[in-house]
Amino acid sequence: MKLNDKGLLVVLSGPSGVGKGTVRSALFKMEGHDLVYSVSMTTRGPRVGEIHGKEYYFVTREEFERNIRDGKMLEYAEFVGNYYGTPLAGVQEHLAAGREVVLEIEVQGAEQVRAKMPDAVLIFIAPPSLDALYKRLLIRGTESEEHIRQRIEKAKREINMAYEYDYIVVNDTVENAADKVLAIIRSEHATVKRTLKNYKKMLGVE
Amino acid sequence: MKLNDKGLLVVLSGPSGVGKGTVRSALFKMEGHDLVYSVSMTTRGPRVGEIHGKEYYFVTREEFERNIRDGKMLEYAEFVGNYYGTPLAGVQEHLAAGREVVLEIEVQGAEQVRAKMPDAVLIFIAPPSLDALYKRLLIRGTESEEHIRQRIEKAKREINMAYEYDYIVVNDTVENAADKVLAIIRSEHATVKRTLKNYKKMLGVE
Repeated sequence: MKLNDKGLLVVLSGPSGVGKGTVRSALFKMEGHDLVYSVSMTTRGPRVGEIHGKEYYFVTREEFERNIRDGKMLEYAEFVGNYYGTPLAGVQEHLAAGREVVLEIEVQGAEQVRAKMPDAVLIFIAPPSLDALYKRLLIRGTESEEHIRQRIEKAKREINMAYEYDYIVVNDTVENAADKVLAIIRSEHATVKRTLKNYKKMLGVE
Repeated sequence: MKLNDKGLLVVLSGPSGVGKGTVRSALFKMEGHDLVYSVSMTTRGPRVGEIHGKEYYFVTREEFERNIRDGKMLEYAEFVGNYYGTPLAGVQEHLAAGREVVLEIEVQGAEQVRAKMPDAVLIFIAPPSLDALYKRLLIRGTESEEHIRQRIEKAKREINMAYEYDYIVVNDTVENAADKVLAIIRSEHATVKRTLKNYKKMLGVE
């Protein structure tokens, strides 16, 4: 029996290279949930095969900035000269329909979500060790050692921001991590703050 | 990876007749946990086959009251002329060893636990409807209709206390309810308040 009929906004965040995307993929392959992924908006151009409205909403810089000004972005960040962000409207629509919306975003964006939607569930996906994070970034092979060292320093600062989150899930194995996220989603639906009002109404108590 | 090495104190409570004991039994039969059940203390005499230290610690009224005075009871209540309660020492020992301690107690006792151990996880086991609770009490066949009506009134008052709990789990089916309790336990171990300190220490951050 589901006492909370509103969907949850679930934010997966954490340092770059920690494997947020892999955890999210594993989560969507699991059973027993009604999750939707929120499509982001970006000003970078589409890569071959990418479809507007599927991988991203591809918009111009002017359009993105208008969305920011009009308060239509739940969160956004600028990265290597391009904007990336989450349009608010789609998220609200899914939540109202009782679907869980999963965002996979940077730490900076997660703070904006916390401010705008205090009911969101913020999960910090954490590396099992700094050494493991270093190796993951090294294996990617896309960056110099100097850049990787900078990323590790940034990761340390971000780990110090984890107190603003609700949960810490260590990505030791992807299955463990996804499984824990699912337990968190189930558990959050049973919290008193999300259920008590509906429950008392259902029972006709008070 | 378990970031929180302390055990959780999990309190299953809720109105009389809601099926707390059945949920607890189902929970203990499930896999993937390290739960222990805390043995209660009582002044009522042992029934045939009941063993001191297994079903209950059977003590005299004087001994029980001395335990109360010495602050050795985590919670207690008087019921039909007898004391029932949870000795603190055993609970603390299990928690320190990293085991989850499950208490199945009355609403009155749960409030005492909240006051003494704020880190406890309080789960309100709730009936799917007042009608369902009525039928359960009727099927038991141990009480008059008048008594059952009194219990329903008491249940209503207790449901109004549920805001002091952390979670509400509706006992629609025992399997569902036990499964949700297990998700809550897993999820609670990942909360920032229980993990962040250890995690930062593990990583040598800060």
